[in-house]
Amino acid sequence: MINPNSPPPALPDGGLRVVALGGIGEVGRNMTVFEHAGRLLVVDCGVLFPEDDQPGVDLILPDFRAIEQRLDDIDALVLTHGHEDHIGAVPFLLKLRPDLPVVGSRFTLALLSAKCKEHRQNPTLVEISDGERRAFGPYELEFFAVNHSIPDAVAVAIRTLAGLVLHTGDIKLDQLPLDGRLTDLAGFSRLGDEGVDLFLVDSTNAEVPGFVAPEREIGPVLENVIRKADQRVIVACFASHVHRVQQVLDVAAQYHRRVALVGRSMVRNMGIAAELGFLHVPDGLFVDLNEAMEMPANEVLFVSTGSQGEPLSALSRMARGEHRQISIRPGDTIVLASSLIPGNENAVFGVVNGLARLGATVVHQGNANVHVSGHSPAGELLFLYNAVRPSNVMPVHGEWRHLRANAALAVATGVAEDRVVIAEDGVVVDLVDGEAAISGRVEVGHVYVDGLSVGDVGESTLSDRLVLGEGGFIAITVAVDSSTGRAVAPPTVSGRGFSDDPKALDQAISLVEMELSRTEAEGITDSHRIAQAVRRVVGRWVAETYRRRPMIVPTIIPV
Amino acid sequence: MINPNSPPPALPDGGLRVVALGGIGEVGRNMTVFEHAGRLLVVDCGVLFPEDDQPGVDLILPDFRAIEQRLDDIDALVLTHGHEDHIGAVPFLLKLRPDLPVVGSRFTLALLSAKCKEHRQNPTLVEISDGERRAFGPYELEFFAVNHSIPDAVAVAIRTLAGLVLHTGDIKLDQLPLDGRLTDLAGFSRLGDEGVDLFLVDSTNAEVPGFVAPEREIGPVLENVIRKADQRVIVACFASHVHRVQQVLDVAAQYHRRVALVGRSMVRNMGIAAELGFLHVPDGLFVDLNEAMEMPANEVLFVSTGSQGEPLSALSRMARGEHRQISIRPGDTIVLASSLIPGNENAVFGVVNGLARLGATVVHQGNANVHVSGHSPAGELLFLYNAVRPSNVMPVHGEWRHLRANAALAVATGVAEDRVVIAEDGVVVDLVDGEAAISGRVEVGHVYVDGLSVGDVGESTLSDRLVLGEGGFIAITVAVDSSTGRAVAPPTVSGRGFSDDPKALDQAISLVEMELSRTEAEGITDSHRIAQAVRRVVGRWVAETYRRRPMIVPTIIPV
Repeated sequence: MINPNSPPPALPDGGLRVVALGGIGEVGRNMTVFEHAGRLLVVDCGVLFPEDDQPGVDLILPDFRAIEQRLDDIDALVLTHGHEDHIGAVPFLLKLRPDLPVVGSRFTLALLSAKCKEHRQNPTLVEISDGERRAFGPYELEFFAVNHSIPDAVAVAIRTLAGLVLHTGDIKLDQLPLDGRLTDLAGFSRLGDEGVDLFLVDSTNAEVPGFVAPEREIGPVLENVIRKADQRVIVACFASHVHRVQQVLDVAAQYHRRVALVGRSMVRNMGIAAELGFLHVPDGLFVDLNEAMEMPANEVLFVSTGSQGEPLSALSRMARGEHRQISIRPGDTIVLASSLIPGNENAVFGVVNGLARLGATVVHQGNANVHVSGHSPAGELLFLYNAVRPSNVMPVHGEWRHLRANAALAVATGVAEDRVVIAEDGVVVDLVDGEAAISGRVEVGHVYVDGLSVGDVGESTLSDRLVLGEGGFIAITVAVDSSTGRAVAPPTVSGRGFSDDPKALDQAISLVEMELSRTEAEGITDSHRIAQAVRRVVGRWVAETYRRRPMIVPTIIPV
Repeated sequence: MINPNSPPPALPDGGLRVVALGGIGEVGRNMTVFEHAGRLLVVDCGVLFPEDDQPGVDLILPDFRAIEQRLDDIDALVLTHGHEDHIGAVPFLLKLRPDLPVVGSRFTLALLSAKCKEHRQNPTLVEISDGERRAFGPYELEFFAVNHSIPDAVAVAIRTLAGLVLHTGDIKLDQLPLDGRLTDLAGFSRLGDEGVDLFLVDSTNAEVPGFVAPEREIGPVLENVIRKADQRVIVACFASHVHRVQQVLDVAAQYHRRVALVGRSMVRNMGIAAELGFLHVPDGLFVDLNEAMEMPANEVLFVSTGSQGEPLSALSRMARGEHRQISIRPGDTIVLASSLIPGNENAVFGVVNGLARLGATVVHQGNANVHVSGHSPAGELLFLYNAVRPSNVMPVHGEWRHLRANAALAVATGVAEDRVVIAEDGVVVDLVDGEAAISGRVEVGHVYVDGLSVGDVGESTLSDRLVLGEGGFIAITVAVDSSTGRAVAPPTVSGRGFSDDPKALDQAISLVEMELSRTEAEGITDSHRIAQAVRRVVGRWVAETYRRRPMIVPTIIPV
């Protein structure tokens, strides 16, 4: 009998095992591990950005524990595209296995190289192109062009003796893509004819009905905004969205505005894109930021990062009036040509309000069609299922609500309900004799990067941060004669993050003194027991007096 | 010369002064103060719910400082409707002036009474009805029916010698309202004929194009969902949205499901609504929660609070599998028939994912039309401006982005651009000789309620909480001989919210010891200076070693 919550039994000969170490049950840190004939293949290795209940953390990595004893068994790491949630954790995996072959398209590998350079790494890169086939160990890979919100994304078909697997990566079906590079539905149909045994499908937009408008419909909207602007224009968008930036550049050129790039990642990525021919920059369009500041307001346009309201970004600083070079003036036009990632609303609208307060006109997704998604919604996913006609389906890239919605779409197109496997991170799915099923679970946790170190911040530190962030702390320090248990000086009681009132804790001092007299009278000399007694009495007092729950931190110094 | 950032000059005779103490430049804690002939009138007195940068706070009140020396000058407090952001702070104002006449419609005053009872207050209530006129001091008030997401909302016209003012409160123009009570556009037009000198207009949805669909279109959507359900159905919505609940009850009755109300505020408010005739409950429809738990799954329906993902709400507990009575089972249907208030996305989708993981089908605003807004978007606001034809406009109830959008709509209908006054909280607007203009500013801050006390948590405490929540703290405690400055025991160094690694701070101890030798050698005996030196050396070490910024808390005990 299979227990879905225990480690799985050995993989039957000829079977294929699939485990996501990240990206299922969450949006981000995508990483899927395949196992066949004793060898491993990894698809993507991204990071996740922390939420409110993970305060102070910079990044969250996939949990490598399930593969860290088998690093030498990995034949290749395949990257479907260059977004952070697909490549961001690669340097951390390369630290464990520096010679791992990293497979991807030209633009994807260029972005990865730039990232690895910052980590002083020099990875082994294997560039592939659309339609190419290539074997790594027992894995026969075939790559298919897919359309997404970054150029040069691919889906990967994986052929083994266990059957044919297709992994979409992130995907949409823009039928008029800006670069003419369509998602290769014809290729998917050919795979469907051959027979796809397991289909791993992007779930991000599965709850959304219908279709995504073509990216090229953003251009005329931008044109309409920029044409009317008679002061400065600032367009913020994702630093990897080459096609969005392309349309901004084209409109800028049309209205005789020169363009300055603002933000380190924007400058870096657009440099790479232009060099590789993914971004076409009209001669003399770009201008240095300092030079742009000297030009008339109606002759420049800034393309900036900060579209998600990141507090340190250039745009946020402008909104607070703190940017070193650019100060917003009445009549300026700011366009947020970007999605609004759930959880960032307060930050983004904080920026919008700051800009509006300074007199700028702010155009964003909420009041104009300046963004289209990069992920197929329900209508497009149906096209995918009908092209591929898979026998087994495993929704990936999404929270539970997305996975369930995607599963329902698969069933609606005729996939048998018990052949749609909803797994979350760590759940082991085995494809054996053409049937996919859950065979167990490996342990998968959150691995936090905070500053320079990885993994030392864990759930206990985060839960302390949550308590401290909600209520602050009250520290009580007492020096105690270690032989008698008598306080040798008056206790100090102080709070941080507790109250602005300097007298708020006065009453607590006498309570602590009374408690110390009691412990001394009872002959208690053990620091730990004295600390416990002090914590209890102060905790009870603050709960009754203020109905608050600060952290109570007693320190007893034996002298 | 007027300085818009200084306190205003005395109000000219015959003029009317308007100051918002909350609700402009933010969504919530609405409170507008009018002054004329030495007397004051207050419209609404609500609370604001805290955001991420205000951690641990329960509520935010309007800042009463501008009126607290003039409480006896207030002739009346008018409440436009019963939502928390309009009535939530009334008990705090009544504490300062218990005999203040509180004016409102029947349902509004019933909700206020219930709230005041919890605060053991017995306010002086003045019930008014639609179309009624009534004078308070120099203010001639006239009340107009308006449609909103709660029954019995009103707009108020204020006649003084300075002119005619109309304040919409929260408003929309549902042309087929469930209770047949239309927003009194005819009345507004009559005021327009008379001549409206100043129009204060709800800005909440001014950025949204078009019109709100009628509330009654939610019914068929609910019917479609509930008809198909063969297990339990749980509908979550706002506890004051009587018409939404009415439609749920009607569909439940149609499909022979009995209804149990879940959540304290839902039970309380629907009790009031039913008693006053605003909610029509078919005989025998309601069933006690305990009894409902014993009934077949397809014969019950639960109407619950928790639609905003509030962590302690019934629905959140169900999603975590922690509800005392209701455990979610595969096949259950949950409907979130509610808006998604910006900032609550993570919490709400956390609940949706939790329910989906347990196998429930979750219907929400993102995948079905189960919610309509309670505020007029741009299309409806144009109708309002054209009916009222005001000479001066002051957008209220909104963030800067909403105020700017609303101002643009006023101008589009023909209001002179310099007669549209965008003020934020504390900005003083004077209507003198038929012209409204900013005359100065009074100080308005955030007043925080945290637990039992009001006002002792301020910006300094919140900024400490933010630092502690991001990085925790490192406490260093040293007992020092006060005459020599020599440490009498080894220093203790401990962190909370800093690292899970017990050895993370080992290195800091020897640094502190070295620093103490140095201060001792330099003859430093002053605790404060020793503390500073210790803080500096530990702060520098942790920044270099970890690139983190915990709070550094040195305590020097002189013994």
